This record gives sequence, C-alpha cells and structure tokens, in this order.
Amino acid sequence: MDIYQESLDLHQKLGGKLSIASKVQLQNRHDLSLAYTPGVAEVSRVVAKNPEKAYELTLKKNTIAIVSDGSAVLGLGNIGAYGAIPVMEGKAVLFKEYADIDAFPICVQTQNTYEIISLVKNIAPVFAGVNLEDIAAPRCFEIEAALQDIGIPVFHDDQHGTAIVLLAALINAAKLAEKELTELKVVINGAGAAGTAIVELLLCVGYDPTVCTPVKEIIICDSKGIISRSRSDLQQSAQKMKLAMLTNREDKNGSLSDAMHGADVFIGVSVGDLVSQEMVRSMAKNPIILAMANPIPEIMPEEAKAAGACIVGTGRSDFPNQVNNVLAFPGVFRGAMDAKASRITPKMKLLAAYALANYVKSPSPEEILPSVLDKEVGRAVAKAVAEAWKSEQTA
Amino acid sequence: MDIYQESLDLHQKLGGKLSIASKVQLQNRHDLSLAYTPGVAEVSRVVAKNPEKAYELTLKKNTIAIVSDGSAVLGLGNIGAYGAIPVMEGKAVLFKEYADIDAFPICVQTQNTYEIISLVKNIAPVFAGVNLEDIAAPRCFEIEAALQDIGIPVFHDDQHGTAIVLLAALINAAKLAEKELTELKVVINGAGAAGTAIVELLLCVGYDPTVCTPVKEIIICDSKGIISRSRSDLQQSAQKMKLAMLTNREDKNGSLSDAMHGADVFIGVSVGDLVSQEMVRSMAKNPIILAMANPIPEIMPEEAKAAGACIVGTGRSDFPNQVNNVLAFPGVFRGAMDAKASRITPKMKLLAAYALANYVKSPSPEEILPSVLDKEVGRAVAKAVAEAWKSEQTA
Repeated sequence: MDIYQESLDLHQKLGGKLSIASKVQLQNRHDLSLAYTPGVAEVSRVVAKNPEKAYELTLKKNTIAIVSDGSAVLGLGNIGAYGAIPVMEGKAVLFKEYADIDAFPICVQTQNTYEIISLVKNIAPVFAGVNLEDIAAPRCFEIEAALQDIGIPVFHDDQHGTAIVLLAALINAAKLAEKELTELKVVINGAGAAGTAIVELLLCVGYDPTVCTPVKEIIICDSKGIISRSRSDLQQSAQKMKLAMLTNREDKNGSLSDAMHGADVFIGVSVGDLVSQEMVRSMAKNPIILAMANPIPEIMPEEAKAAGACIVGTGRSDFPNQVNNVLAFPGVFRGAMDAKASRITPKMKLLAAYALANYVKSPSPEEILPSVLDKEVGRAVAKAVAEAWKSEQTA
Repeated sequence: MDIYQESLDLHQKLGGKLSIASKVQLQNRHDLSLAYTPGVAEVSRVVAKNPEKAYELTLKKNTIAIVSDGSAVLGLGNIGAYGAIPVMEGKAVLFKEYADIDAFPICVQTQNTYEIISLVKNIAPVFAGVNLEDIAAPRCFEIEAALQDIGIPVFHDDQHGTAIVLLAALINAAKLAEKELTELKVVINGAGAAGTAIVELLLCVGYDPTVCTPVKEIIICDSKGIISRSRSDLQQSAQKMKLAMLTNREDKNGSLSDAMHGADVFIGVSVGDLVSQEMVRSMAKNPIILAMANPIPEIMPEEAKAAGACIVGTGRSDFPNQVNNVLAFPGVFRGAMDAKASRITPKMKLLAAYALANYVKSPSPEEILPSVLDKEVGRAVAKAVAEAWKSEQTA
C-alpha cells in the first residue's frame, strides 16, 4: 500500500490526530466545585486582575495556536482552511511529541490580511505563542510583522524554522568544506517566504552586529533570474524590492546559472529539477548544495556529488542531511515559552541555529544535522533560545 | 481552607486544566510520514476537495469551540477575556467528562459584536459546534442569531442550557403539584439571556405547534417590574420589546410582587433575596419556586417551604433540586454532533428537556432533576436530541 493510502486509512481510523485531555477528574461535588463553580470564580478574579497570572493558572502556560489560512499548504498550494486542518494537526502532534507543547490548530476561513491579524490579536489571551503556518507570501510577512507587539511570540515557521535549520546545516557544511562562514558566496533560488527569511538570517538583519556573522555575498533568484536593483519588474513587490536592497552588492543580472558561477553554496527553496551538473561544476571548489524543493530536489544528491559537490542536503527523509523544520520549531517555542519571551528575536533564531549545529558532535558529509527522530534536540535548542532571550533582557 | 483558596491552589498546581493529547506516536520515519509529510498531503487533498470529510478525517469530528468575550462571567460581570479562561477551561472539562467531547476555549479580546461574529465564522472549519458562553445581553442574542447559518450548531448555553434544565424541572414539578404544564401561570424574574430563552422555550417559539406545549401565561419582570406593552421605557431594548409582545397577554403592570399574585410558578434568574414569604403565600395553591440566583437564591428553600411552596429548586449544590446547565449542554452537543446537525432547533431543546425530566424515574419534591454527578444523563439527552434532529430532516 502506498504511503498516501496508508495515511488516509490511519486518519479515518483515528478520526483526527488530536484530542483535548482534562487534567482533573470529577468524581464528586467537591471536585466540581474546585474545577468549576463556585471555586473557579476566585481563579477568574485573580487572572482578571492580573492577566500575567494566566501563565500560571490556565492552559496559557503551555498552549500555542497554529494559525493557517491554507493558502500555501505543503506543495499543494492554496487549498483553503479545510485542506489545511490535517497538516496543522500533524504539526500539533510534532509540537507535543518533540517539546511537550500543547498546540491547537486554528484554520481560518479568510485570506484577508487584516481579518487574520485582527483574529489572531483577539484570540491571543488563551495562548503563549502563535505559530503561523502555510500562509502565502506576501501576506505572511504582513501578518507576522503586524503581530510582533501583541505580547506573545508570533513566528512564521515556513520562514524562520526553515532559515534556522538551513543555517545550522551551513555552519557544519562550511566546516567540512573548510570554508569560513563569513567568506561564503551564497546563491538562493526562491524569493518567497523561506528564501527571504534565509537572506535575513544569513545577514543577521536586525541583529547585534558584534555577534553577527553575515556571509560575504548573497544572490537570490526568482523565476525570472537574479534579483537586482536594476530590474524594472520588482516594483509590484515590496518584499522583492527589499531583497534587492539587502543582497547582490554588485547588482549583477542574469540567470540562476549565471548566479551560481563561482558560488560556494547553492540553496534551493523553490521548485525541483532545475540545477544541472554543469551548473554545479561552475561553482567554487568544494561546493555545498542544499536542494530543498519537495518532493523533487533542485538536483538529486547522486548527480550533485558526481558533479563535485562536497556536501548535499535535501528536504527528503530518504537521503542523508534532511533539512527539516521539526529540528527547529519545537525547541524555539519551548525556549521562548520557558523564558516567557514576548517575541522571537533574531538572536534567538541565530543561537538556535548554532545550538542545532553544535548538537552534531562529529559532523560528516553524511551528517551535518541531527536526526529528525532525535527528540532531545528540542531541549538543546530550547536552552539556547531561552538564554538568548534572557541575555537580551539584561543587556 | 475555603473553596476559593483550594481552587486557586489546584489551578496553580496543575497549571491549567486542559492539555492537547496526540493520538499518534512518532517512533520512526514511517510514523512521521503518515502523521505528517508526505502522507498527510493526501488527507489534505481529500478534505480540500470535500470539506465534509473533515468530520471523518480530522479533529473536527469531535471538537467544539467554547467562545466567550468575558463580558458576563459567572456572577463576576464583565471581567474580560483573561478572567474568562479558567471558567471556559472548566466548561471544557465538563464537556470531556460528561460527553467525551473535545472542547477548546476561545476567549476573545474584543467585545465588538461584528468582530466576534466574523471571528467565529472564520475559525469554524476546525469545529463541529460552537458553545457561546458568558456573553452579555443583548450581544449574545445578536451573535447567536447571526451565526445560525454557518453550518455547525451555535448554542448560547447561558440561554438555552438554562432553559432546557428549567423546563425539565418544571415538567416534574408540575406533575408533583398535580398541575397541567399547559395550565401554568408562570412568573419569571430577570429579563436577560436566561429569562428570554426560558420564555421562548416555554412558549415553544418557532416550534411546530402540534408538538408544542405552551404554558398558559407568562409574566416576566425586570428590575423595574412587569414588562408590558404599555411601558414606555422599553424602546431602547429590542429584546425587551420582543418579550413584551410574547408575554403578559393582559398587559398587566406592576411590581414583581403584583405579578406573583395567583401565579403557579416563580422562576428567578436575576439577583437573590427579593422574594418574601408573603409573596409566596400570595401565589396559587401548591406553588413551585425555582430560585436560581447564585450564590444567594431569590428566597431560601426553607423559607419558601415554610410559606407553603410545594417544590423548591435552586442553582446551588447544597440544596436539593439543583438546576444546573451541566445536565443539558454535554448531551445537547453530543446529540447534535452524533446526528451531524447543522444547528440546534427548538424541537431539539424541547425533547432534551423531556428526556431530562423522564430520566428521573420517580420524581419527588426533593428530586425533580437527575443528579449533576450522574454522567449517564448526557447519553439520554443526546439520544433525544439526535432523534429530534433526524425526525426534522425526514419530516
């Protein structure tokens, strides 16, 4: 039986992957009067007077929302709120299994940016954090930006989860390729949510420059080729205009193939099967290929290796070096919640990436990242994230 | 230790009363590929194509939202979204324990009617029903009315849960007092959410008149006395204007005391300690008193009995005949969900009340309702509710 049918059967059998569990039992009137009226009135009075107490006395302590409008679900595109539910439930399962976080899916039947912003603000009291998921660009940028000051961390995983794991992979890959991270010339294909977040993290945008390790050069391509300040077709997209300002210092123009010439690193976060062996051969010595298009990578690992790639990672579980967000998001939220952080800062993301890279004791070309099955990873990431937040509060 | 401190300590110890449980375990890559990518993509495709499948393949199957804006929480008033959380969590515990329903609290940080309506519509895909809770009148009426056509049941428990249990109590009380339900003269004190729903259920508003059992006369009072069509101060309130049209056929005026003269039933859903023994003595023979103000009833049971009351019920657990919503809402939602009902109809409420009344095998003055600790009650109510829905679909 193929994996699709097997998954369908499992979902049918379970009738959904999540349930709500009660921590209290109601055996007698006394139990009722503690969990509900009249006793609960006192808890409500205390929390109403001091909303911070919700972190101690209510489910807010350990609960986050996973919010999606279903506009960019996996590789399925804009399938809407209903289609998003199974994925968001799956994500909630990962949060529970990897970081003991109670995550609840909120799949919204609107793709209006302002309605989504207003909705998330309005439901925030119950949650200690919000994981935005599978929301199309540029809406995802606008929503995330608008929600940074609501008092709880709001984190778009497709952007930052991917960027954190990618940076971790790059840190170890650079060591193995005997290159300095700060000297790398990086080419990114895909200027959407993930590509943009990778640029920002590699440049440490908004981050303290004394701890920051920007790479030497980033060129990012969209479907029309290199994004440059001289391109006249970017004016429709504030996001691409911003990328044009942040990257490509020499304002090069050309195709992806032109961009890759002499580069140290190729990062693919768009569609598969568009990098040739020729293109890999044109790169600098010991090239690093992180080809994350799913299910078909930009170039298959064996082809890339045959063309001289030193390290290859993909998004797939059936090849070595799987770049998978599950290495990041559980620990990032666990750490933020443990530290009672009100947002996820660039430093938290950066130190999450280093914690992830350092978790691999002896990196090798076949192992630049921890296994996605290792549930201890989250703890290491959480520790780094919590410490980053605390260091910024006392700084 | 008093109950308030004990409840506070329990909440502190637990850190909230709910958690999210995962039904799947992730031990290996295969588990991951079934619960999450790539397998889940097929489930998403199926649900996106046919949203009804969400009832089989996702948490929608057994999950409802408990939505509150915190504007009328218990007797605490407008304490806001944070203060509402402990109560809504408690309600979710009751749903789980009494009807195995997964209920999640959505406490909203807005008291704007249209924002709440829009929010509930937008989050509906994940839920099989919405329990509105502790929302002040008249907003609760507007929100509930606006959400009747969203495809899932939306039920304001403070209104209809109370009305159902009240009617069940009345059915058995009337038997014991040897009075016909349809011949009763009823006085209600309190013209808010509960009072209005009681009027509608006693009159079977909107319900098939062939099965309906309207009581003979209802007079409803607010803090200014009897609501009548001749009162000039009701024009600010569409709800009270409606009550004036539905009740008080003879357009009487006067105080609560005037209203009670010659009445068979007193129902109190407002504030306590305002019915005197004198007032009870002025009622018809074998008067029935359902004094549900909390924590202090409109008249204490022993006083009412001494003044000749035949049956007395209150909202309190330390007296016999506790009129408590928990007897209704778990079964109502269980039945509606089992029947895949898209709304809660008047017939469903009415038959829920009869199921509840009939559940008491041998009603006595000290036992007109089932015990709130009896967790089988929900099943009987659910059966009646599901059958009511089905009968209406085939009618």
